[in-house]
Amino acid sequence: MKVSETGEFGLIDRLQKMIMDAGVDRAKGLLIGIGDDCAVWKCSGKIQLATVDSMVEGVHFTLDTITWRELGWKSLAINLSDIAAMGGVPRYILINLALPDVTETEDIEELYRGMIELAQQSKTAIVGGNISRAPLVSITITVIGESVNEHILKRSAARPGDAIAVTGWPGSAAGGLAMFMQKLKFTKEDATYFRNAFLHPVPRLEEGQILVKNGIAAAIDTSDGLISDLRHICEASKVSTRINIADIPVHELLKKNFKDKAIEIALSGGEDYNLLFTGNTDIINKIKKQLDVPVHIIGEITTGAPGGDAVKIDLLDGASKPAKLNKTGWTHF
Amino acid sequence: MKVSETGEFGLIDRLQKMIMDAGVDRAKGLLIGIGDDCAVWKCSGKIQLATVDSMVEGVHFTLDTITWRELGWKSLAINLSDIAAMGGVPRYILINLALPDVTETEDIEELYRGMIELAQQSKTAIVGGNISRAPLVSITITVIGESVNEHILKRSAARPGDAIAVTGWPGSAAGGLAMFMQKLKFTKEDATYFRNAFLHPVPRLEEGQILVKNGIAAAIDTSDGLISDLRHICEASKVSTRINIADIPVHELLKKNFKDKAIEIALSGGEDYNLLFTGNTDIINKIKKQLDVPVHIIGEITTGAPGGDAVKIDLLDGASKPAKLNKTGWTHF
Repeated sequence: MKVSETGEFGLIDRLQKMIMDAGVDRAKGLLIGIGDDCAVWKCSGKIQLATVDSMVEGVHFTLDTITWRELGWKSLAINLSDIAAMGGVPRYILINLALPDVTETEDIEELYRGMIELAQQSKTAIVGGNISRAPLVSITITVIGESVNEHILKRSAARPGDAIAVTGWPGSAAGGLAMFMQKLKFTKEDATYFRNAFLHPVPRLEEGQILVKNGIAAAIDTSDGLISDLRHICEASKVSTRINIADIPVHELLKKNFKDKAIEIALSGGEDYNLLFTGNTDIINKIKKQLDVPVHIIGEITTGAPGGDAVKIDLLDGASKPAKLNKTGWTHF
Repeated sequence: MKVSETGEFGLIDRLQKMIMDAGVDRAKGLLIGIGDDCAVWKCSGKIQLATVDSMVEGVHFTLDTITWRELGWKSLAINLSDIAAMGGVPRYILINLALPDVTETEDIEELYRGMIELAQQSKTAIVGGNISRAPLVSITITVIGESVNEHILKRSAARPGDAIAVTGWPGSAAGGLAMFMQKLKFTKEDATYFRNAFLHPVPRLEEGQILVKNGIAAAIDTSDGLISDLRHICEASKVSTRINIADIPVHELLKKNFKDKAIEIALSGGEDYNLLFTGNTDIINKIKKQLDVPVHIIGEITTGAPGGDAVKIDLLDGASKPAKLNKTGWTHF
């Protein structure tokens, strides 16, 4: 069977089962292994986190729409976002770069300028890596961090009754992708908004740390799409959820430029790298005041399906009636 | 200027300078950043190590010569070897896999069987990773480990007067590569030796830890080639070196099958993933008795060139006269 038939999540499930059956999923000090945004372990009483992610030419980017500098920024940003999703503090960066030998050295320097800019902003250090020749450009980054206190955010900590909140404006990055793919013509100002949303995501590091400090326990970053990432939380927490479509924050520029498709893009578009989290409504309202980025409550966590069956995601329209959507998220295969 | 003109090490130097100039090479607790086999930092008094390396289809392997299982083993082995080079204990593994969606799911399971086998042997845990679509298979692995005591092995710790020693039989992996590339016909037994040397390297983890415990301070793994890796040690330690060609261990099967090219292959062939280290002769002779893998002393460390100029690597023939070689190691561009 081809990987395209097994699917990304199906393949991950099979490999995870092999790893568990062989007993190599466990180690001294390990707190969280496969299945969350970061791996987490204890080192002399201190919590450490590590994550890896990559950007592959022709799959995650094309060099005719992204600048080298933006590519450097985004490659690091998507990894820092995984640390943010667990409320951690990033510390050390390892960069694995594969590139054709006809690449211009100056372009690689621009790539590094983008990474260095974000490393400076996030107070992280580039401590190692590897460069190899390859037919296509790909950048794989590992970030190692630590927890801000004795707690971290987890996918598995959502509880029935929790409100669900999201930072930023979901679907904006997907709007940018659509703009490039479909060569849509927007005003210069609108195009800049969508370009930045897609190519210059800002990892929500400080926001994640503020969530932890306020006692929030469950979060994920919105990389696969709002509904898909919500599904990850529900599966890990063995809960279901009810979303009120009328409460989904849709940015005015998404509405203006994508009309009646805007809500679908907001629900299913990936790569926003904002935070989706759950918790007590009062605490979320308190957090809202501490964050510069907008926070919207979009629904609530409900009890899981009996017998541990597949989680249920109920979408309700403005009149609290069930709504349907075509797309439910973004996978690799 | 193309990357092919700048060269792998030239490119690394330029990027490292940018990183240093921007001040993102430093961080609280960081002991060793770019320039050694692993990054090293202190976490609550404990020394942690991390390394990343990748195998790219068409560059590091072709699927017509390596099995998926061997590919899994080797992908992890080359990373564990970096931990071994610093005398560390590997703990956690993150796997970043890029592959075409037409890949057979069963092949990826075989790939993981190879990794799992080595994870079991090395008592490490697979704790996370990422899978994405790509036109070619590439496997990028991050390994995080810790030190065996309060010391680690470093490239920068070689001192004039140290003897230089190497484990195993250098050039054997390159013999395997040559066998595949030039379609050489060997006896079945000889072919198995070279196949394993090239496709099934054994990371010298226990050996590295024994070096640390015996007070050895300087080491590197032989991934680029004996002379090239020796140059890395000399540059990091600001020393020079004198190598006696007659003392280079050349495996009898390398001699038998490659005749008068054997010595050149032993000196310049990459991917052996053994350990090259320096230290007091008596200590090295003591270590010899503790290791199952052969250890040979091949030369000595001499004082660096005055004024910090390029290091000198003197090769002496059997009569202690200067010898010359065409190749000096393996780089990516």
